[in-house]
Amino acid sequence: MSEQIFTLMEQKEYNEARKRVVEMNAVDIAEILEELDIEDGIILFRMLPKDLSVEVFSYLSNEHQKSIINVITDKEIQHIMEKMFFDDMIDLLEEMPANIVKKILKHTKEEERKLINQFLNYPANSAGSLMTIEYVGLKKEMTVKQAMEYIKTIAIDRETIYTCYVMNESRKLEGIVSLRKLVISDETKTISEIMTKDVIYVHTHDDREDIARVFRKYNFMALPVVDKEDRLIGIITVDDIINVIDQENTEDFQRMAAMEPSDEEYLDTSIFTLAKKRVGWLLFLMISAIFTGNIIQHFENMLQTVVVLTAFMPMLMGTGGNAGSQVSTLVIRGMALGEIELKDILKVIWKELRVSIIVGAILSSINFVRIVYFEKFDIKIGLVVCITLFFVVILAKIIGGTLPIIAKLFRVDPAIMASPLISTFIDALSLFVYFSLASMILGIG
Amino acid sequence: MSEQIFTLMEQKEYNEARKRVVEMNAVDIAEILEELDIEDGIILFRMLPKDLSVEVFSYLSNEHQKSIINVITDKEIQHIMEKMFFDDMIDLLEEMPANIVKKILKHTKEEERKLINQFLNYPANSAGSLMTIEYVGLKKEMTVKQAMEYIKTIAIDRETIYTCYVMNESRKLEGIVSLRKLVISDETKTISEIMTKDVIYVHTHDDREDIARVFRKYNFMALPVVDKEDRLIGIITVDDIINVIDQENTEDFQRMAAMEPSDEEYLDTSIFTLAKKRVGWLLFLMISAIFTGNIIQHFENMLQTVVVLTAFMPMLMGTGGNAGSQVSTLVIRGMALGEIELKDILKVIWKELRVSIIVGAILSSINFVRIVYFEKFDIKIGLVVCITLFFVVILAKIIGGTLPIIAKLFRVDPAIMASPLISTFIDALSLFVYFSLASMILGIG
Repeated sequence: MSEQIFTLMEQKEYNEARKRVVEMNAVDIAEILEELDIEDGIILFRMLPKDLSVEVFSYLSNEHQKSIINVITDKEIQHIMEKMFFDDMIDLLEEMPANIVKKILKHTKEEERKLINQFLNYPANSAGSLMTIEYVGLKKEMTVKQAMEYIKTIAIDRETIYTCYVMNESRKLEGIVSLRKLVISDETKTISEIMTKDVIYVHTHDDREDIARVFRKYNFMALPVVDKEDRLIGIITVDDIINVIDQENTEDFQRMAAMEPSDEEYLDTSIFTLAKKRVGWLLFLMISAIFTGNIIQHFENMLQTVVVLTAFMPMLMGTGGNAGSQVSTLVIRGMALGEIELKDILKVIWKELRVSIIVGAILSSINFVRIVYFEKFDIKIGLVVCITLFFVVILAKIIGGTLPIIAKLFRVDPAIMASPLISTFIDALSLFVYFSLASMILGIG
Repeated sequence: MSEQIFTLMEQKEYNEARKRVVEMNAVDIAEILEELDIEDGIILFRMLPKDLSVEVFSYLSNEHQKSIINVITDKEIQHIMEKMFFDDMIDLLEEMPANIVKKILKHTKEEERKLINQFLNYPANSAGSLMTIEYVGLKKEMTVKQAMEYIKTIAIDRETIYTCYVMNESRKLEGIVSLRKLVISDETKTISEIMTKDVIYVHTHDDREDIARVFRKYNFMALPVVDKEDRLIGIITVDDIINVIDQENTEDFQRMAAMEPSDEEYLDTSIFTLAKKRVGWLLFLMISAIFTGNIIQHFENMLQTVVVLTAFMPMLMGTGGNAGSQVSTLVIRGMALGEIELKDILKVIWKELRVSIIVGAILSSINFVRIVYFEKFDIKIGLVVCITLFFVVILAKIIGGTLPIIAKLFRVDPAIMASPLISTFIDALSLFVYFSLASMILGIG
């Protein structure tokens, strides 16, 4: 499909290209525009019917939006701004350089400019930064028939008409009514008779992660956002929440791999930004590993006497780190989904104590057989390695399970207590246990 | 709110409890039922109005659904089965033990039993296993007015009425029309005049991860599912997709931390299941680490001569592992979101080569200053450690970036190429580079 359009544009068969394109979904048209070279993209964009062009515009990447705004006329910009949904416009303004923002705002009315500024000031990641103002507001006294007629006149400009919000004179939220309920209800009933009064809502400053949890729990299509005085300010729709969930997960993945989080797509990120996001944590972990080196230096004499002890170090450190990361990952994820809370810390410890005894026993015995029977090492060496392994697994699992919860207690993102930090910590701990046991059992040190 | 209900139930003020509960959201009622003890829960459940009770039932956990089915009458079961949405019923049947499934199926008609069996046979994680059959089907010839009247009569039993599906006589999907479009269109227009013909759909056997990507891309509320002959079989709604996204992410987190994935909540999982999901990978990684141990044994003489080399091993292995995991995490995530594809492998290598030179240079120089100027080690030792570090970072980043893509090429889940496997691999590699450089620069070995 898109290949045909490319060919048509190349052959300058613009009318034919246009005819094909207008039949397509706006998301697909946006994709085609992004793949065309910039001149052809703008030609095709300008040929779209006005309303479709606004929709397509809202699906373009920031880069492409910028280049289109730079070449189209002020009148065209004005039209796009007027027709775009408010939340998309705010997202656009947040990403654009100052000169383009100025160009855009030139064309908005005083009153709207005020509202835009209010929205731009909501904290990033808050309900305020996610919501849009294009909802359907109804009054309690309306009949179903009146409501349906009203909706018919405004539907085209509303982000959703499937949930309608009932407010009193001071814009306080009193109830909600779904379009489904309106469709099946008797036309003479009033809104107050059919509306749901037990409304679930969020506040403008609530965190987007909490909002995602509300959507998960109730399977909503849209969620109303109110201010401190319970006045309805906007709504958040479910499609934006899927974005939020993706972004929150990406952030967790990045933090858990010891990087500063970034929303940019990997292939679009410059190498300097990538390096910057990574080097800080690598440096911190590298310096922490020096501590582990110090432990080794402290036991230098022992290692010189029984140099074979060195050969088991990677296995002990690696297994400890992996055992700890398994738990910390489960706990971090459980907390992100709201399944594990601070009060569960003792439950986690008790669970991990038992799991780690099972896992530690299995790994140690297999290892013992290998070291003593297959590789014919001294039984004492086998004991040192396997007792260490057993305790390291237990310590690793309990540390891995508790550190993320403790982090949350101190309002630090639990995601940083993942593999890299846990492993570095357990590296030091496992060598300390190893050398201490060695000096006891082998009688050196 | 829920505390009041608990107190009322305790005081056996059932009528008052019922009065409060029926005003609440079905999700919240389900939560209260799960927190009550089982007898009170069943009392309260039976007092709910019939339709509400079905909705509440569908939000209960499997455990609670089971215990309710065990005590209610066959007639009550029948009512629940008839009123439940088809996808919820299938989920229920999939989770119930055979005797309960038998009890449930006893009450369904021959024809429905066939359909149930068809749905139970769709592969797990396929579109078929996610879809429901309660959609609104329209005919092309209908007028908007007829369509609205038809929707009014069936709306109550449909999972969504906001997207309607237009089919021909052989149930082939010909178009879709949103309720919004119906509401704003002239009543005398026909469906074929207002429907969208460029319908995006999926097939019954498509994978749920791909379906999530379609929802992400197009911001749909619902997506039609067709069979091989393009006949409409069912629809998938966006609320189920949020579940899919959560589950897919949880699986990725688990695989990336070297565990077999599980859908069960951590606190609900038995210690034996937890141990089983973890021990296999730990064992595999432990055995792989023996290889690293062998490298050390091979260079035993060198370590005995310059025992201080041992002290830098944890730092080199740790930094290499961390540097590699950072990239592999970004690439795994990028592939899961569809941002990075197989064909991007050279782009990734080229990007990582440059990033790793920057990062490697920074880390090595800081380390060199520390080792030679602060800790007063021989400059040759400093050189061995820092040149190793520089190359290990480069190798780690390139390996971390390519292994997940190569895994995908061989149809292995890229998520297993995360921190644990990458670190184990890079441990061996970094020691090999380290000792080789040491024997060259220090002239021993």
